[in-house]
Amino acid sequence: MFSTYQLLNEETVLAYVKEKLPELATGSHVSVKEIGDGNLNYVYRIKDEGTGQSIILKQAGDTARISDEFKLSPDRNRIETEALTLQGSFVPDLVPTIYFFDEVMNCCAMEDLGDFQIMRQALVEHRTFPQFADHITTFMAETLVRTSDVVMPHKDKKEQLKRFVNPELCEISEDLVFTEPYYNNFTRNEVTPGNEAFVAEHLYQNTELHTHVAKLKYTFLTKSESLIHGDLHTGSIFIKEDETKVIDPEFAFYGPMGYDIGNVVANLIFAWANGVVRKDRSFVDWIEKTLVEVVDQFKEKFVATWKNHAVEPFAIQNEAFTTAYLEDVLKDTAGMAGLEMNRRIVGLAKVKDITILDGEARLRAERLVMTLANRFILNSSAYQTGDSYLKALHEVKELQL
Amino acid sequence: MFSTYQLLNEETVLAYVKEKLPELATGSHVSVKEIGDGNLNYVYRIKDEGTGQSIILKQAGDTARISDEFKLSPDRNRIETEALTLQGSFVPDLVPTIYFFDEVMNCCAMEDLGDFQIMRQALVEHRTFPQFADHITTFMAETLVRTSDVVMPHKDKKEQLKRFVNPELCEISEDLVFTEPYYNNFTRNEVTPGNEAFVAEHLYQNTELHTHVAKLKYTFLTKSESLIHGDLHTGSIFIKEDETKVIDPEFAFYGPMGYDIGNVVANLIFAWANGVVRKDRSFVDWIEKTLVEVVDQFKEKFVATWKNHAVEPFAIQNEAFTTAYLEDVLKDTAGMAGLEMNRRIVGLAKVKDITILDGEARLRAERLVMTLANRFILNSSAYQTGDSYLKALHEVKELQL
Repeated sequence: MFSTYQLLNEETVLAYVKEKLPELATGSHVSVKEIGDGNLNYVYRIKDEGTGQSIILKQAGDTARISDEFKLSPDRNRIETEALTLQGSFVPDLVPTIYFFDEVMNCCAMEDLGDFQIMRQALVEHRTFPQFADHITTFMAETLVRTSDVVMPHKDKKEQLKRFVNPELCEISEDLVFTEPYYNNFTRNEVTPGNEAFVAEHLYQNTELHTHVAKLKYTFLTKSESLIHGDLHTGSIFIKEDETKVIDPEFAFYGPMGYDIGNVVANLIFAWANGVVRKDRSFVDWIEKTLVEVVDQFKEKFVATWKNHAVEPFAIQNEAFTTAYLEDVLKDTAGMAGLEMNRRIVGLAKVKDITILDGEARLRAERLVMTLANRFILNSSAYQTGDSYLKALHEVKELQL
Repeated sequence: MFSTYQLLNEETVLAYVKEKLPELATGSHVSVKEIGDGNLNYVYRIKDEGTGQSIILKQAGDTARISDEFKLSPDRNRIETEALTLQGSFVPDLVPTIYFFDEVMNCCAMEDLGDFQIMRQALVEHRTFPQFADHITTFMAETLVRTSDVVMPHKDKKEQLKRFVNPELCEISEDLVFTEPYYNNFTRNEVTPGNEAFVAEHLYQNTELHTHVAKLKYTFLTKSESLIHGDLHTGSIFIKEDETKVIDPEFAFYGPMGYDIGNVVANLIFAWANGVVRKDRSFVDWIEKTLVEVVDQFKEKFVATWKNHAVEPFAIQNEAFTTAYLEDVLKDTAGMAGLEMNRRIVGLAKVKDITILDGEARLRAERLVMTLANRFILNSSAYQTGDSYLKALHEVKELQL
């Protein structure tokens, strides 16, 4: 019945699931609900109300969910499924389980994480997660090192790189992260009234910054290092007290490791800025501690994963190479964190951590973020430890911005 | 008749050409000769003895021509043809014209360059070519800059990158250039008797060098910058008094620009070392002048090609970015030149410029090359001008090696 592509809806989903997953849909009390609130895809929860068993079905259309104007190849659903499957082979506890993928329907079924919360929302509520740093650094070290030329036979990596060439979703990042926030002639930028002069001076007219941004853009365009998640912000993380699941890797492609790590750093800093202007000392302390742990634990796990799995002769025998490689990754990390920070303040896609704030608090939070961002971009090689980030946060917090 | 793949021979080639290029093979006096002396492919000259008109037919087998043990996908013939066609669209005078490509037979027909000489042989004979630097720098600037993200729409570049993923031929370089020359346990290395101790000290036991070699190897593995030729030594260049043609881009893939430029630099230095030990002052002077021109003219043409064709906003508006980008390319160039130099001395594939020398002259030429190579690798960022290379050549020539 579903042998050619069609966009499903709440009615047809049920027939589709009965055909593809009959074991789920035996009961007569199967409910279907569209629960997607993302920009691009359709997400359904299909639940057997009798047994309580449920799954998530995610389908990609050939335009974005929020606008027919965004034409996007539904191939992104294949990329997401293959990335989740591959990541699941390294860190099964840190991604949802995939049940099936239908390449005709551009549709995949996966574990329902109904009892998890999107991490961004949890951070906006100033909730804290003591194990988050441990979980996310395991995710990053495992998925980034093990898909790289350090661990993979180079021929296999090249074939994998080819499967994950992702022009359309990369273009979104190239435009929204690496270009538009630095040009005042892009109509998609939205600067908060009151910060126009700050943005003009620090972003639009900052030629020195542009040189560094351009270099980082070319790192993103040309550094085919690892299969990165490509969109690893706190909206792509489901979390609860003792568990973390990374979702939505549809932006995955072979890119620089530092882009993923930088995204995690940046998104912690949005929560930090929120905590600072709301004067929630204990939340700020937890975020700072977590940021330090993210950087330092990533470094430890990077080296450990490298040592456990490297096949490359130089990678096995030359410690100075491991050190130099990690230094480069951390340099990219700081720069990419800065890029993510600026773009979420002035670009099209904002973050709730900041937009939920009002008046002077929001303006100040934005200026804190942009000031840190430019430090990270302009001096990216200086951020080699958790402490170096902490020092920057403490310095900038004291500035009259 | 040739609807499935078969390896041609001097007999069947004629029938094949009559079917595919009937306009050539009308005359009754068509001769066929296998003229290939490369390692991998079969090359035939097909000539109408009446008109004198001739073409070259090149076919890839599924093993290397020299050994059945080397299994190689005949897809390399597609890559070669597509690379030549693309390069020809930028610099039609600097590559042979392609007449047709047959993807079933893994075969392409191209312009016969019968009146050209392979440049390596010409250099062994100490011939000089006043226009070579001009030609090769035009070739490199045009083909490298115009296939990069500076000029190409980024989505198109990604699709092109995918077409040129080249795992098998890249693996040959990864092993022979970037790995084996630094390990004494590879049986394919061949060290000239008399230089064993030098090689052990300067290559095999040089841990600091290994760290830099490893970084360069990862630049080769992960920097998807431009469609590079991938094997741009003087054996891949046909030359005569006033014309230059670059051939054999079957190693082409999206890699670092500096690999191509470094190969040209390195192969000029083999000719230089030959000239030095043979004490041919005027030849050495010409090589040195040419090397300086190659570096400095490449820089000029790189900037000019960038300015003429860039579409990327930062590339158009930010001069400091152009400068920084070029600095990186030149850093890669020096390192890659050093890698090519060492591998041609101790690795499997030697060069005639050196192997034609006897006794102490050969040993000294090899030590000159390896000494320069290690300087380039260990201090790659110092070689930003033609003069910096010249200075190194002059210093090393005076050393007691």
